Order: sequence, then C-alpha cells, then structure tokens
Amino acid sequence: MLTTAYSNPSPFHGMPLGRHGDKAGIMHVYGMIKKKHVSSWGLQFKAPTKVNATKVDATDGKMVDQEQEVPNMVSDIGLGRMFQDGSIFREKICIRVYEVGPDQTASVETLMNHFLEIAISHMKRIGLMHDRFGSEEMSKENLMWVVAKIQMVVDHYPTWGDIVQLDTWKYACGKNGLSCNLTFSDYKTGEILVRASSIWVMMNKKTRKLSQFPNEVRAKLEQYIVDTPPIVEQDPRTWSKQEENIDEHICKGLMPRWNDLDMNHHVNHVKYVGLALESVPKTIMENYEIHSMTLQYYRECTKDSVLRSITSILANDNVRVPNVDVVDCCHLLQFEIGGGGGSIMKGMTRWRLKHRKGQVSRASVSSLTEVSNTKNSEN
Amino acid sequence: MLTTAYSNPSPFHGMPLGRHGDKAGIMHVYGMIKKKHVSSWGLQFKAPTKVNATKVDATDGKMVDQEQEVPNMVSDIGLGRMFQDGSIFREKICIRVYEVGPDQTASVETLMNHFLEIAISHMKRIGLMHDRFGSEEMSKENLMWVVAKIQMVVDHYPTWGDIVQLDTWKYACGKNGLSCNLTFSDYKTGEILVRASSIWVMMNKKTRKLSQFPNEVRAKLEQYIVDTPPIVEQDPRTWSKQEENIDEHICKGLMPRWNDLDMNHHVNHVKYVGLALESVPKTIMENYEIHSMTLQYYRECTKDSVLRSITSILANDNVRVPNVDVVDCCHLLQFEIGGGGGSIMKGMTRWRLKHRKGQVSRASVSSLTEVSNTKNSEN
Repeated sequence: MLTTAYSNPSPFHGMPLGRHGDKAGIMHVYGMIKKKHVSSWGLQFKAPTKVNATKVDATDGKMVDQEQEVPNMVSDIGLGRMFQDGSIFREKICIRVYEVGPDQTASVETLMNHFLEIAISHMKRIGLMHDRFGSEEMSKENLMWVVAKIQMVVDHYPTWGDIVQLDTWKYACGKNGLSCNLTFSDYKTGEILVRASSIWVMMNKKTRKLSQFPNEVRAKLEQYIVDTPPIVEQDPRTWSKQEENIDEHICKGLMPRWNDLDMNHHVNHVKYVGLALESVPKTIMENYEIHSMTLQYYRECTKDSVLRSITSILANDNVRVPNVDVVDCCHLLQFEIGGGGGSIMKGMTRWRLKHRKGQVSRASVSSLTEVSNTKNSEN
Repeated sequence: MLTTAYSNPSPFHGMPLGRHGDKAGIMHVYGMIKKKHVSSWGLQFKAPTKVNATKVDATDGKMVDQEQEVPNMVSDIGLGRMFQDGSIFREKICIRVYEVGPDQTASVETLMNHFLEIAISHMKRIGLMHDRFGSEEMSKENLMWVVAKIQMVVDHYPTWGDIVQLDTWKYACGKNGLSCNLTFSDYKTGEILVRASSIWVMMNKKTRKLSQFPNEVRAKLEQYIVDTPPIVEQDPRTWSKQEENIDEHICKGLMPRWNDLDMNHHVNHVKYVGLALESVPKTIMENYEIHSMTLQYYRECTKDSVLRSITSILANDNVRVPNVDVVDCCHLLQFEIGGGGGSIMKGMTRWRLKHRKGQVSRASVSSLTEVSNTKNSEN
C-alpha cells in the first residue's frame, strides 16, 4: 500500500460549525438620480446621470436592494479570527469561479493556495511572519521559512460558490520542524472536506542551508503550539531508486512562467504540483481525482529553470496494471537543464474514480491498462 | 501614440468609499480544556485535550481573543451587494499572498481573475448566468457568454494584504455586445487603483459562431444597463499586418497546463495573458510594470494546443528604440501546432518604470536599446 491510513482523528474533527446569517452593519453609499435613456440597442435603460455627494445610509433600505442579497449570506467571509489564545486560527472563504477546473471543483492548487494563505496569516498574527520571510528574530539571523513537505487528503472537493471554513493550528515536528495543520469544512453541513498537514523548516537566506530554530522563535512558538498530532498522519514512505528510475510518462521542456514566481523570486511551491501533474496521463486526469497526496520538496527553482515531470503508475500488488477504482502514482519533478538534473520535488498521489456527475464508468478507463509501461512524452 | 487616453471619468469615480469597521455578529466556537504538555522540542505547550460539545457564544469574549483581531477589520469582505436596483454590484476583497508576484503586488492575472469573478457574480444575481454558460434563456438557444475584449488601466497595483473595493456595472456595447466595467479602489483611501472594461458577446455552443442577443435576454439586460460610458475608453486601434510580422521576441512551444483550463474545458482567457507575457524580454518584466493593456480574443484553445507567444517592442516615433520611461509592446498569441497557425489573442501593452522600491534606475534599462531588433527565442 502506498498511501497511509489518513484516518487520524483531531480534536477539531467533530466540531460542528457555527452559522452566521447575520448581515453586516452600516453600509454607506452615494445616491444617484435615475432617469430613462435610450441605449445603442434602441431600448430604454436606467441611468445614473449625476453623483449626489450626500451620503445615504443604506440601512434605511433606500439604496441597497435588500431583497436581492444572497440568502443566508455569511457576514464574515475573509475575516481571520483566533481562538484558544491564538492557537487556532479560523477563516471562511468562498470558492471563486477562477479557482475551479473543468469539473467545477476547486483544483488541488486552489486548496494549496488557501492552505498557504491561512498558514501565513496565522503566523503573521502570532508574530512569526513580519515580512515575506519570517519573524523579526529570524530576520536578524537571515532566516526564512520554507515548506519541506505537504500531505493532503481530499474527501470531497468544494465547488464554485461553496463557502468553506478553514481551521489551522500548529504542532511541533521533530526538533526543527513546525507542522501546520488545516481542515476545510463545508460551512453549511460541517462536513470535513479536506485535511492537510505541512512541515515548515528554516533556511538561511545566504547559505540556502537549513537551520535550527533560534531560541527566541522557539519561545514564541511555545505559546501557540497545540498537543494534537497532525491532522494527516506522517507518511513514512521514501522514494526508492527503483521507483525513481521508472519513467513511464515524461513531460519535458517545462518552463516556469512569470506568474509562477512568488515574493521570493522563486517558483512558488504550490506551482510545483501543477508542473508535476503535467506528466500524468490524460486518461487519469480526466477520469480520476486526487484522493490523497504527499509532496516532499528538495530544491528551489527559478524562472530560468527548465524542468521535466515524470509520473509512474504503481500497482498495489507490484503488477503494473492499475486497479480501476484506485490508481497510485509516483511523481518526480527534476531539472532538465541546469541544477545537475536533480529532483526538486518528489510526490506520491492516490487517485479515485470521479463519481460526482455520473459520467465516469469503469469501462471508460480500461485504456489505463494500455498506457502502463509505455513511454509518453506528451501525455 | 499607441495607448489611448484612459482618462474617461465615470460617475462612480469620485465616490468616496464607506468604511465598515463593525465586527461580525455571533460567533460560535467549541470549548477545549487546556493544560500544559511537553513537546518534542522539550518545551511546554498548551494543548486542547478534550472537545467540549457545549457551544460557547464567543460574543461573551471567553473564546475569541478580541485583542488579537485585526485592527479596523472589515466585516463584509467577500459579500457582494447590489445597489441602484441591481445596476451596480460591489464587493470587497483582500489581496492574498498567492495572488502577488515578486514585487509583492497583485499580478495582472490576479486583477483579471477578480474582474471575471465579480462580472459573473453580478450576472448571476441579475439572472444572466444560471449555470457556467449563461442565463436560462440562453441555454434554450445553446448560447454562452464569451469575452471578446478586455482593456485595463492600472494606476497603482494593490499589494499583499490590501483590502480593495470592486465596483462593477454594465453598459450596452453596439448591438450585440455587453460592456462590463470595473474599478478597483483602495478601501482605506478611496483612491481608484485600476479601471477595466470588457466586452462580452454570445456564442453558439454547437456552431462556435457569434450570435445576436435573444430578445428575452435583451429585455432582462435593459433593467440593469446604465447610461455611463465604459470606465476605459474604447481603444480603436487594430493590429496591422506590419506589426504582426515583427517577431522580435518569440517564445515557442508553450503548452497550456491542466490548471489553465476552466469550467468550459478550454484555456481560460485570463491565462492567455500569462502566456503572452512569456515572450516579453526579461529586462522589461523585471524593471517595468504594465500601466495599460488592450487584449482582443479571437480563438479558443485547449490543453492539447501548442502555442507561440510573440512580443514586439514599439517606439512612439517609429524608431525601434524604446523610451526608457515608457515602453509600448504589441503581443500575439498564436497556434504553433494545429489551429492553422492563427492568432488566438492579440494585445497591446504600455509599460512604465517601476518606482515603488527605488531600486530601478533609467541606467539599468539602457540595455533595452540593445534587445530591440534582435531575435530572442528564450527571453
């Protein structure tokens, strides 16, 4: 079995979620005089012809179309709040149209983006991130946070328009690692949709080598660490040389785009996933969805890097024909030009058949047995 | 001059913005008993050891760390509201860490993503978008909305953590076009940061040809159209054959990624921008920022497409040496394999020197005079 049992319970797991149907407070708008005009379509339309500089309090109902508000609207989307003296940070988000893919569900990159955002927001609130690199104590020693590992289990992908509650908390991981944990829950039902855990370590900005935590940072962290194991059990697997040499599906010549760079002028770690998925066969991408994944980060890369992405399809019983319900894959993202050909990320994914829209059948993926053991440079 | 004067005033322009410092309503959390434990770091930390199933109303201050809330927090981020009987739609957003690039400012793609989101949210509210394609009346006739043109003027890029207010409204454009307009304003100062205008047309899903607006849709639109010219003046320029044949900077072999696809299984129009920018010389990307752009969309493309991006640097006086303060570029995004080599998008951009962090000097971009008239396949 490649994927560990991700059934580790968390104290936050069973938490039913609060509902907030209350509307936000006073809304000031500016009045405009309306009158009828004729458009280029030859039809009459309403027109704001003059800006009235007098404030109108919208709570009187004159300017805001109360009946046109979203029913049961959530008044605190995007407002991060801390609980338990800062140990837990919570925020609600709405899945946007540009965050979903062809299935109308949030992409894995979207989930990872929100994980990154809330982990950093929490760090900012508790004094562990005062600029784009780390805390003030870290700045003095030229240290920055880097993500070393991410594990994610997706029970259910949120879709366009869904309101999702994020809960994050931190846990000590080894002597020099910080585990950031996250759940995505459906705001309406309280159902846990996604569980994720990441390990953050410190790197020296000049030497690019990993560092111990300064005592000041350790002392600060102590106030916010909780005694809860990571929401996703640590995946103890390592990538064997044998697996690394399997290059069934390769996508070469991958060039990071300008938009892949983050504030540190390097390719953002979330973008590595998209690059890794480029070598996954089309049949899998179209008929399966990621159920769980483990990503281990090894190197940085820049806009000038040229990368290759390699996916190996693994079977549970060492036979290279996938089970049609579940497909396990091994991923490598390597330098193709520069970087000595080394790996910048290794990953393992477990995929399950998509069931949501009923258009996927087992028969439709029988071709998977044919794509194994073939080299495919374009997928 | 390549760029038109984008100084067209709007009735919304001078609108000072309301401020909403009020906190959201009742917050329910679940109590946890804390006690001291020893972590793997050998330090004591707080631990939630038991989930208490009794609801605690956070408004009593027991569970929420009120003093740790963000000062002046905005209680209605992400809550779209309609004004003027639905003619104007407004929403506040917060710029996220994953939405900014190396300069810590929102990328052009981020701005376009939010434009797409709010334009569609507005359409959904007023009955012009009931699924991922269009209104119910449009579904009956197999019609869908497509974006034909986008213009954007960026006076000031918002940065990570900024709260931005978006205001959008619709205007009739010709006989069969709908102009969606948008301003991004700084929530704190009211300053207009970005002005944008896009033209939406209807396409038949089966024939992929443009269509007239059905009368039912026209009648529905009539209720929400305002008599305000687009916030960005229409750019009347066309791309001359001469300009199209200038291939100073080419980036070949661009392959759309899985994450570039939208709900319609095609490459999302926002992603075209990132692909177009791939051929912009590094010197420009690093030292300049886009001040204004006009994008005209011609064709769809898919995951299987292989594209080439071409950028020509244009001078104001027909001399191919750019002004060091302002650089005008012409962009083509074309099929390299398949699609008959046709253009899928044409664009014009005006770039200005970055001044924000003071690290950019005129001298540093003197090399621009050297990159002109040279072929560059890798940029």
